[in-house]
Amino acid sequence: MADVIDILKEYSAIVVKSIEENLGTIEPQGLQDASIYLTKAGGKMLRPALTLIVADAVGGNKEDAVKTAAAIELIHTFSLIHDDIMDDDDMRRGKPSVHKVWDEPTAILAGDTLFSKAFEMIISSKDEGADSSRVANALATVADACVKICEGQASDMSFEGNFDVKEDEYSKMIFKKTGALIAAATKAGAIMGGADQEVIDAMYDYGRLIGQAFQIQDDYLDVVSDEEALGKPIGSDIAKGKMTLMVVKALAESEGEDKDRLLEILKDTESTQDDVDEAIDLFNKYGSIEYAHNLALTNVAEAKEILEILDDSDSKQLLISLADFVLYRSS
Amino acid sequence: MADVIDILKEYSAIVVKSIEENLGTIEPQGLQDASIYLTKAGGKMLRPALTLIVADAVGGNKEDAVKTAAAIELIHTFSLIHDDIMDDDDMRRGKPSVHKVWDEPTAILAGDTLFSKAFEMIISSKDEGADSSRVANALATVADACVKICEGQASDMSFEGNFDVKEDEYSKMIFKKTGALIAAATKAGAIMGGADQEVIDAMYDYGRLIGQAFQIQDDYLDVVSDEEALGKPIGSDIAKGKMTLMVVKALAESEGEDKDRLLEILKDTESTQDDVDEAIDLFNKYGSIEYAHNLALTNVAEAKEILEILDDSDSKQLLISLADFVLYRSS
Repeated sequence: MADVIDILKEYSAIVVKSIEENLGTIEPQGLQDASIYLTKAGGKMLRPALTLIVADAVGGNKEDAVKTAAAIELIHTFSLIHDDIMDDDDMRRGKPSVHKVWDEPTAILAGDTLFSKAFEMIISSKDEGADSSRVANALATVADACVKICEGQASDMSFEGNFDVKEDEYSKMIFKKTGALIAAATKAGAIMGGADQEVIDAMYDYGRLIGQAFQIQDDYLDVVSDEEALGKPIGSDIAKGKMTLMVVKALAESEGEDKDRLLEILKDTESTQDDVDEAIDLFNKYGSIEYAHNLALTNVAEAKEILEILDDSDSKQLLISLADFVLYRSS
Repeated sequence: MADVIDILKEYSAIVVKSIEENLGTIEPQGLQDASIYLTKAGGKMLRPALTLIVADAVGGNKEDAVKTAAAIELIHTFSLIHDDIMDDDDMRRGKPSVHKVWDEPTAILAGDTLFSKAFEMIISSKDEGADSSRVANALATVADACVKICEGQASDMSFEGNFDVKEDEYSKMIFKKTGALIAAATKAGAIMGGADQEVIDAMYDYGRLIGQAFQIQDDYLDVVSDEEALGKPIGSDIAKGKMTLMVVKALAESEGEDKDRLLEILKDTESTQDDVDEAIDLFNKYGSIEYAHNLALTNVAEAKEILEILDDSDSKQLLISLADFVLYRSS
């Protein structure tokens, strides 16, 4: 895992440089500062790294994909800034969120600016010699993901307090909200790397599968990890009543007293650690933790199988390691 | 003028149809409703009409430009929705603004969705046979305008309560906030119509000039119109302390008591009609109304001169009429 993390850091440096060059012209200075702030807060930069690694793995030129990769990170950051306003989240990446450091109008505008800059950056790849039909395809891929992100966030908000959500509705929402951009990142990498349509579609599926596994694993770690590794109390998602695949599954499988008790704990805004532990026991009783974990395992296995379409290379190996990394990280 | 308005309505119908087709797939329904709401509130649709008319006037195919035109209207609508949140404006186009009908999170998301859909629409022109390099250039034009809109809004917010703003700072802000998208609309029309670079640049300048004239005329009508034609009290901008070219100019030219009194009226949140009339007298005393009006006249004359680069056609005539319409409309 150490290797993967080191390599992600290398890619991250390339992306950060490109972002800083492109955001450095924003004026007035206050808007520039608010726009850049979160990109400097040390995210994993998994999405842009995937774009660059896939571009290389399909036999293309990584350089052609740098601006697209950076743009995808800007789209991700834009959505975090706006989500934090909508969900009134005070903290992000261990720092106060943009609308807390500045104010809501500035945060709305910083998000809009990153969004605009993202499209500007992808288009400007063309001026640096990238093929214009590839650029148009990458743009279409990213724009499609942006629509899905908005739709996913709207569904997520509409689900609030509604614990009758079915597994397929939940999966669709979570794919749009978080998986679509990861799938766009890998697909755009394949497009900018000049892959043929079959490989482009395969890379989309690879991204979609590891994206879903990543999301499930996030939720899974919240209930099975230890507090020290996680950096927050076990089951904090349950205490907050957050909808996860495990919750959806446990509610679908349970009945009577068990279901009532689970709903009670999820709806209670002042759940104790005992309540949370009881909910985790109910998850186990109805097999929902195992179900989610197995789905993540299956996704990762399937994602790695998809990679067989690629010729062997260091970047292909890295994509295999990244699929595993999604599953075996501890936080 | 009646002719121009009738023709704008024809173009508007084409654009509305394209918008409705493209927004009709947004889900959940609540997000779709909030996204479509303002596009149905009967705006002038001047920007998309300009795109279509220019595409025709440069000898191109209007059909190729419809999605780009519609996208520019979506960008305009997105910026209105987000501006209304930032400025806490309750009304827009005679109806409650989006964040009042729904809520702020939904309005943020509706804006983001329109933004995403706008780019998706321009790109999809390619699937309908539009030239892919034209599509990329139109995208670059629109993305550039989006960055400028954000920068202009940020400058506008940073100017609030600051009456020391110089004319060049003010002009730059207002160009970015409102002129840039009108210039992008005419430029994108020329691009999609297949014009050469000289004509594309000329059409940008035409849009920039009538955009500035439009803005000045808006402010000018507020002080010289009669209440009935305007549909609101004379000088309501002054009562609100709004920065306009006339304010910037009058403050630059006046000194001593006059300047102090003008500042007092502008800063007073409870100005009476007598105060407002006094401010208008001061505008007249320092020639700022005439200055603004002359600038608008010069812009329109220059814009019409630029059109000489085009071959004669009905659409060229219409562009000439539109330049005049900007100046001679009464509201």
